[in-house]
Amino acid sequence: MANDQIRAAILGASGYTGAELLRILAQHPRLKPVALTAERKVGQAIGAVFPHLAGLDLPEMVAIDQVDYSGVDAVFCCLPHGTTQDIIAGLPPHVKIVDLSADFRLSDPAVYAKWYGHEHKAPELQKGAVYGLTELARDRVREARLVANPGCYPTAAQLPLIPLIRADMIKHGDIIIDAKSGVSGAGRAAKEGALFCEVSEGIHAYGIASHRHAPEIDQGLSAACDYPVIASFTPHLMPMSRGILATIYVSMREHDLTAADLRNELRRVYADEPFARVLPEGVVPATRHVRGSNFALMNVFPDRLPHRAIITCVIDNLVKGASGQAVQNMNAMFGLPETMGLEQQPLFP
Amino acid sequence: MANDQIRAAILGASGYTGAELLRILAQHPRLKPVALTAERKVGQAIGAVFPHLAGLDLPEMVAIDQVDYSGVDAVFCCLPHGTTQDIIAGLPPHVKIVDLSADFRLSDPAVYAKWYGHEHKAPELQKGAVYGLTELARDRVREARLVANPGCYPTAAQLPLIPLIRADMIKHGDIIIDAKSGVSGAGRAAKEGALFCEVSEGIHAYGIASHRHAPEIDQGLSAACDYPVIASFTPHLMPMSRGILATIYVSMREHDLTAADLRNELRRVYADEPFARVLPEGVVPATRHVRGSNFALMNVFPDRLPHRAIITCVIDNLVKGASGQAVQNMNAMFGLPETMGLEQQPLFP
Amino acid sequence: MANDQIRAAILGASGYTGAELLRILAQHPRLKPVALTAERKVGQAIGAVFPHLAGLDLPEMVAIDQVDYSGVDAVFCCLPHGTTQDIIAGLPPHVKIVDLSADFRLSDPAVYAKWYGHEHKAPELQKGAVYGLTELARDRVREARLVANPGCYPTAAQLPLIPLIRADMIKHGDIIIDAKSGVSGAGRAAKEGALFCEVSEGIHAYGIASHRHAPEIDQGLSAACDYPVIASFTPHLMPMSRGILATIYVSMREHDLTAADLRNELRRVYADEPFARVLPEGVVPATRHVRGSNFALMNVFPDRLPHRAIITCVIDNLVKGASGQAVQNMNAMFGLPETMGLEQQPLFP
Amino acid sequence: MANDQIRAAILGASGYTGAELLRILAQHPRLKPVALTAERKVGQAIGAVFPHLAGLDLPEMVAIDQVDYSGVDAVFCCLPHGTTQDIIAGLPPHVKIVDLSADFRLSDPAVYAKWYGHEHKAPELQKGAVYGLTELARDRVREARLVANPGCYPTAAQLPLIPLIRADMIKHGDIIIDAKSGVSGAGRAAKEGALFCEVSEGIHAYGIASHRHAPEIDQGLSAACDYPVIASFTPHLMPMSRGILATIYVSMREHDLTAADLRNELRRVYADEPFARVLPEGVVPATRHVRGSNFALMNVFPDRLPHRAIITCVIDNLVKGASGQAVQNMNAMFGLPETMGLEQQPLFP
Repeated sequence: MANDQIRAAILGASGYTGAELLRILAQHPRLKPVALTAERKVGQAIGAVFPHLAGLDLPEMVAIDQVDYSGVDAVFCCLPHGTTQDIIAGLPPHVKIVDLSADFRLSDPAVYAKWYGHEHKAPELQKGAVYGLTELARDRVREARLVANPGCYPTAAQLPLIPLIRADMIKHGDIIIDAKSGVSGAGRAAKEGALFCEVSEGIHAYGIASHRHAPEIDQGLSAACDYPVIASFTPHLMPMSRGILATIYVSMREHDLTAADLRNELRRVYADEPFARVLPEGVVPATRHVRGSNFALMNVFPDRLPHRAIITCVIDNLVKGASGQAVQNMNAMFGLPETMGLEQQPLFP
Repeated sequence: MANDQIRAAILGASGYTGAELLRILAQHPRLKPVALTAERKVGQAIGAVFPHLAGLDLPEMVAIDQVDYSGVDAVFCCLPHGTTQDIIAGLPPHVKIVDLSADFRLSDPAVYAKWYGHEHKAPELQKGAVYGLTELARDRVREARLVANPGCYPTAAQLPLIPLIRADMIKHGDIIIDAKSGVSGAGRAAKEGALFCEVSEGIHAYGIASHRHAPEIDQGLSAACDYPVIASFTPHLMPMSRGILATIYVSMREHDLTAADLRNELRRVYADEPFARVLPEGVVPATRHVRGSNFALMNVFPDRLPHRAIITCVIDNLVKGASGQAVQNMNAMFGLPETMGLEQQPLFP
Repeated sequence: MANDQIRAAILGASGYTGAELLRILAQHPRLKPVALTAERKVGQAIGAVFPHLAGLDLPEMVAIDQVDYSGVDAVFCCLPHGTTQDIIAGLPPHVKIVDLSADFRLSDPAVYAKWYGHEHKAPELQKGAVYGLTELARDRVREARLVANPGCYPTAAQLPLIPLIRADMIKHGDIIIDAKSGVSGAGRAAKEGALFCEVSEGIHAYGIASHRHAPEIDQGLSAACDYPVIASFTPHLMPMSRGILATIYVSMREHDLTAADLRNELRRVYADEPFARVLPEGVVPATRHVRGSNFALMNVFPDRLPHRAIITCVIDNLVKGASGQAVQNMNAMFGLPETMGLEQQPLFP
Repeated sequence: MANDQIRAAILGASGYTGAELLRILAQHPRLKPVALTAERKVGQAIGAVFPHLAGLDLPEMVAIDQVDYSGVDAVFCCLPHGTTQDIIAGLPPHVKIVDLSADFRLSDPAVYAKWYGHEHKAPELQKGAVYGLTELARDRVREARLVANPGCYPTAAQLPLIPLIRADMIKHGDIIIDAKSGVSGAGRAAKEGALFCEVSEGIHAYGIASHRHAPEIDQGLSAACDYPVIASFTPHLMPMSRGILATIYVSMREHDLTAADLRNELRRVYADEPFARVLPEGVVPATRHVRGSNFALMNVFPDRLPHRAIITCVIDNLVKGASGQAVQNMNAMFGLPETMGLEQQPLFP
């Protein structure tokens, strides 16, 4: 290993986000996986868990307490929600951490307790955690030791909404987010509802008004205007593996604002961003155009209803919605270009 | 053929809605196809056009001007939009007609001309056409000679919305319909956008604020309250063949109304309906549960935003959204039970 | 319930084959479900287990030992392999039984023990069980009390092969069956390998030379020629819910035989069959053309290799490969027309 | 552009193989697209034709006669079969060419004329063309000016078969190839048979004994043993966008040979190959494990029939079966490492 390598541990490497991290890091010139953990797969090679990665030269899966952090600079934590707090609390101070779970996303312990059903176990750490929606928080991300990687839905919803709320262009009491997700968002655990036969050739809403990503979205929008925002949020499960589309219905703050004004503001904010892009006027974002990439494509359209607009934003839930943004954040934390390792183009068809 | 048979001609039998009519009529004890037309398939047997129907004893495809209407009682018209008006105008007075195209759906010729780009060619006929959303118009359907069969999206949107507007329970200036459709709605014509590789593993919105089903929805909602309603309507194309899900965001007319009130009203209106059903409280409608059937399943949920509710409604776009409702209407027009031929249960998985 | 109703119990009604039986029986004028059992769903209504069947008037799920067989004439047994033998051994003598598990398919107890890893628990019953490939065994089926319903792969393979072996037209030492199946064949149990993300956009072989349907196929082919046949059999898992395609590679017994001769023999054998059909020359069977129906479509094609032919046969694995054939058999056992309840046409698209 | 850049023209850049080349070259440090042609898309930016590539800095589409070859070193030719011969014949001598069409694959003009229905238009060029199955022909590829890139099916079939035939381990009169392909192999042209609704939830064989890839496979196998081999070849169309699985049934040349012997020979031949890999014993290749990558994964299994074996090989038809192998070949022709630009890992799920 070259001297300038950053040594990464991936805790919880046997799920889809873990695999996606390994796929991305295989192209990363600086970040190198040196430790992989997996509870039930200890001793297995990566090829046994993820045959598509069998060609990579990677360490065997070990138990989480077997990791020697003295040889680790960066930790990606892909553990289930709830189990992460204890583990991160026990990590040595020299490692930088991106946590892909929800454990450090909600800054208010009371909100966390309400939505997750138990008190937060590391409230001190949570105070220092930075919510890593990179494009909108990169200054803080660069200084952070612990970054809470945003959820997939919140990424797709907040990227277009936060700039418009910051610019005070849309009403914050009338934001409706209708989101559609591929099945990989449900993880690799064997559940009846994620079986091929239960998902294929169908769509349905779920978690209506009760999905845990709702308070995460609220938090981001509220911070943008310093006012307690509640958003309507309805996720849907779709017969595809990857991709999220958020279709967002908003009201203009002032009657003379138009969809074009909203679009121009987003273009201004994201003008120099490599991943967050506003499409040409009238071009509709499609999830197939971001598959496997870290892009977030968005656009704004006039609604039929007066003084309203429709915003759509697409991401790959496993990349910009999880592992890609995690690498983008880690790049920022180590002073690397954010695009490093993330230059792969979308896979279409 | 038994004496009590009703002899049906299907004009335009080589598309998906034509095939679906034939599938349904194969189980119908009274309606029998005696003539099938298809422009480019003249002289072909049904098995050459639709191998899945090869087992049926059906007449060959003929040209549309070869049909002898003296032996026809009922006409299902599955022709492309725009071509239908001339042909229906030329049908003999004794036949009853259900038109599955959009040609007679918009009662105002000016609205038709605006959205379809040309003057209506049979405005006199249009005056007498009945818009056949069966559950909500069956008295008029029973007396009609010409029924305009509703579009797929308008069926899914209007079934829950019209009763709530009639009951003056929701604001008509703030109705947002986010609809998701399978690909069969695009028909069988070979288009790049409907190729497997372009649709699979992806979703995107289309026709934002400009889809031709929007004025059809407006018309139905407006008639329900005698006020010109405009609805926000955004369709999406999904990787499945059949099914429409409409997720509808509404505002309560009065602050003391709840989602439960809306749900109760729909339960009251549809209490005795065999096809339109309100699911038990909290149960989410899923398109896979109506596949191949004439059911419309709906439910109402509280929104996170105060004084708002979320309604979802699912149908099979080819059945309740097209050929099934057409048979339901024809049943009503001939005094048969509406369920005749439509008793098939959904195909799942 | 009318006097001529045949009262059916469905043991194990909460799996896909149970649901499919209920879907079919909903259209059956004589066979009526009066008892449904399900181990983990006792007390639940059918709509809670299978929302697509919520509209049916069906009894609640009970535990298997709660069924009162005095009011039951017919039993469909959809229990897991291995658990069925004990239960069927305990049924009263007056009921007729179609068993959809593999428990009574293999007539030789030694073969059963070898492939299923334990001694058969009801060897006496097994002696009297009739292997219910209806078209080729209907005389014995009509007289049977216990019918072992064939496996899905064996149905698709044996329907074309047995007549050709009986006619001594193909070599029995050189039969290669390459079969492709939809995921519903794996049942509704939550397994990682059946998750949407693991199956979608991919295909792979499984159980190569070791699938339990292999000895079942061997048995049928051997009986057809009174010689111990071993067939090469390779199943593949495909991203679809329903359907099996068997592509079968055979060698002619005599050099002057052609693919057309084989095809003619199959046409002769299946000339009057309502479900087993030989397609017109050159027309390729496709699983989408049998979806939801009890059809088996087959055809024979010349191979590029001399003195060889390629046979393809398609069925819906849940219908002709399971529940449809079970109803067909029960019809035969009760002296009803075999097609009763099975007239539904395929659902396409 | 750096001095060591190799300037590439892509003729026919608006199809799936063209898009895939652009995706791959975006990661290639040396090969840079400087000219893109597309008949019907002249003047359009890549983002209008392939929105997923909108982020790339690429030239506009031009007509094929507008390309200035003085600034071009390498030509990838992705034109339709039949049109390519004239165009390649007109290219200046200094450019190196990889042709992805079938035009130069068949070295015998009589065979070409028989299968393609017309005389070859550039027989002199054809003589010098090298068939670019890279792993098995790299010495000749390195010296070639014109490489005929293999077809997708022939790549998956020949990679395992040629070494076994060269080693005289399998009978060449008894090779049966049952191949399954994703839909992208049919290209992006709008055809009814490639519509989502016609392909989804189904499988069927096509081109039985008549597919144009059959003589290409014959040619490769024949060259491997210097004997005219004919192989049985049956392709199937599957509901996925990418991937080919070839399941190959072979007979041992000698009775004492085993599947393990065959597997060992393939392991020996491909021991040092970065892309062609023999999986561990018993591990089944799956197309989802090569999606988006240039890998060919293969393995050998014992058949139930004595003295026979089953070989399976998977590739991504658009990568190793088309554009990836084209880049691999071009790398070889320019003395670059074959893996350059092709290091991306498979995209799963």
